Amino acid sequence: MTTEIAETPISKAIDRVRRKVDARLVRFLDAHLSPVDDPDVIEGYRQLREFVVAGGKRIRPILCYWGWHGAGGGAQEEGPVIDAGAALELCHAGLLVHDDVMDGSDTRRGRPTLHRSLAGPARPPGAQAFGGSAAILLGVLAQAWADELLTGVEVGQARTHAARMLFSRMRLEVISGQYLDILAGMGEEASVERALRVVRYKTAKYTVERPLQIGGVLAGADPSLLEAYSRFGLPLGEAFQLRDDILGVFGDTSVTGKPVIDDLREGKRTVLIAHAFARARGPQRDRLRTWHGEPGLDERNADVLRQIIVDTGALAHVESLITRRADQALDVLREGVIPARTCEALALLVDRLTRRVV
Amino acid sequence: MTTEIAETPISKAIDRVRRKVDARLVRFLDAHLSPVDDPDVIEGYRQLREFVVAGGKRIRPILCYWGWHGAGGGAQEEGPVIDAGAALELCHAGLLVHDDVMDGSDTRRGRPTLHRSLAGPARPPGAQAFGGSAAILLGVLAQAWADELLTGVEVGQARTHAARMLFSRMRLEVISGQYLDILAGMGEEASVERALRVVRYKTAKYTVERPLQIGGVLAGADPSLLEAYSRFGLPLGEAFQLRDDILGVFGDTSVTGKPVIDDLREGKRTVLIAHAFARARGPQRDRLRTWHGEPGLDERNADVLRQIIVDTGALAHVESLITRRADQALDVLREGVIPARTCEALALLVDRLTRRVV
Repeated sequence: MTTEIAETPISKAIDRVRRKVDARLVRFLDAHLSPVDDPDVIEGYRQLREFVVAGGKRIRPILCYWGWHGAGGGAQEEGPVIDAGAALELCHAGLLVHDDVMDGSDTRRGRPTLHRSLAGPARPPGAQAFGGSAAILLGVLAQAWADELLTGVEVGQARTHAARMLFSRMRLEVISGQYLDILAGMGEEASVERALRVVRYKTAKYTVERPLQIGGVLAGADPSLLEAYSRFGLPLGEAFQLRDDILGVFGDTSVTGKPVIDDLREGKRTVLIAHAFARARGPQRDRLRTWHGEPGLDERNADVLRQIIVDTGALAHVESLITRRADQALDVLREGVIPARTCEALALLVDRLTRRVV
Repeated sequence: MTTEIAETPISKAIDRVRRKVDARLVRFLDAHLSPVDDPDVIEGYRQLREFVVAGGKRIRPILCYWGWHGAGGGAQEEGPVIDAGAALELCHAGLLVHDDVMDGSDTRRGRPTLHRSLAGPARPPGAQAFGGSAAILLGVLAQAWADELLTGVEVGQARTHAARMLFSRMRLEVISGQYLDILAGMGEEASVERALRVVRYKTAKYTVERPLQIGGVLAGADPSLLEAYSRFGLPLGEAFQLRDDILGVFGDTSVTGKPVIDDLREGKRTVLIAHAFARARGPQRDRLRTWHGEPGLDERNADVLRQIIVDTGALAHVESLITRRADQALDVLREGVIPARTCEALALLVDRLTRRVV
């Protein structure tokens, strides 16, 4: 297996991991139908399955795989790291389903969000409340599935235990980051410092640092390697989120899978917006205050906001933050702690994640 | 430790387990503060902690303990079964927090529900949405904590793995039962058959059968014992829920911790209500249709509904269902599969759970 990967270019190896994880998810979901034989429950499960299977770039499983690879995993049976990667995806699906309920979002991955599609077009009154409740339950179900999958991972007691503890810690961190995020939404105005903390917990640790480390411990990584994954993962994860913030305002719907006006309408307190607020003066500031977070925002005024984000220099500044963080991550790859072949893959992922063409 | 239990009356042994689980929960929560040092996140965590620590009868941990005891656990170190019991409570807390969000309930365990207290009295506009979102996150947090606690349970690979698989299966079952429950709420009228299926998945397996079995496998229970736990647990769990349905309409607020009018206002599709609907005729039926599930229901009309439930014979019928199920459970204790000392405890629990004075 090592040779097979070694002979293929990195991008093919990444594609192969994605396909393996997808296949594992399908196999798991096929074996985990509704315990209750009821057509409507089965339909709810089917919609969650669709959501898990049809979408997502599998970023976390791919990072988990390379974390494992860097710890010498390539010489071992790869079933456990694929299982762990699939568990990461199920956990992620659960968080996204809940996120959409909390934000009241209509679209995700280019389709109706789960709570919307569960409410259905022809439901009796109360359908919207039903959709929300059903999505809360299905989000918890996805989390429970993640644990079920992880329960099957067995690579010796110490490694298995370490992987479970990291998975658990990751979940506790991302929840606290999300909590901080919804709190930020209650505050008066976006703060750069607060937005950066949200990014660290909600994205950087969750999306990059922990998946790399989980893969690492599955293959018996030593502390210095885990520490290198952390130093590499945090700046990369931050850069990834900052790119996401930019795409959420300036991006292309066909790439992001959601209307690019949504973040502005929802009033997301991103680092980008916080910088715009901090730098805006006079009428710029008034317009930001009026239109950011206004559900009735139209395309014309969205363009006004975009122009303010450009004119204040917020966009250029966030671009520079991304570049700096990508460079920090790449520096870690030059230290010699992470094996060369793994570094090659991680360098490609830095490029993709900070440009978002994964 | 075995001798200590053997020398105390059963009720003292039950109290001791409850105290041990409470102490374990406090110790766990003290060690799991917010990963983010932010006063508002810390406050959210504190409220969840309060909810976990201050309330609940610890029914599932107590059953888990006796399941373990019946499998010879009394001769072993009891830390793992207390940990598993505490994990059951954290899982349960998470489900209750979400349940209250889904039902829009104001009161739980005699206090404001978590989503209400998180919204706070003096929050800016959007506070209600914040409370709901925060409670969704904290419910998931409680589930993640349950897994974290369970990750520390180690009683040899085979037993540990079996306990984790049962815990996971239990969670999948209760979610499907809850899903069936909210679906039932969308239907035209309460159906007895549907309500009974909800009871089986949402309560009987979750509250009694699985906790007993989880305790059992932690102490190496053989299949015949696990099967006896199932035959004992399912009827007892059903009787427990049927009693809950009655208390939800005819109970005492000081016992149930919530206003006894809530179930009627929410229009809960219980077995009790389904029987009343099935038996009501003419004006009885009209009144049931008008007032059951009416948020504006007042005490006078609630009394009218209660009288209909009595007059149709629904109350007496459900009482007979409870008695029959309690007898079924007690019959299993006479089979000789479950050890005598454990049977003594389980018989007391049958009495308490079907009368609800745990």
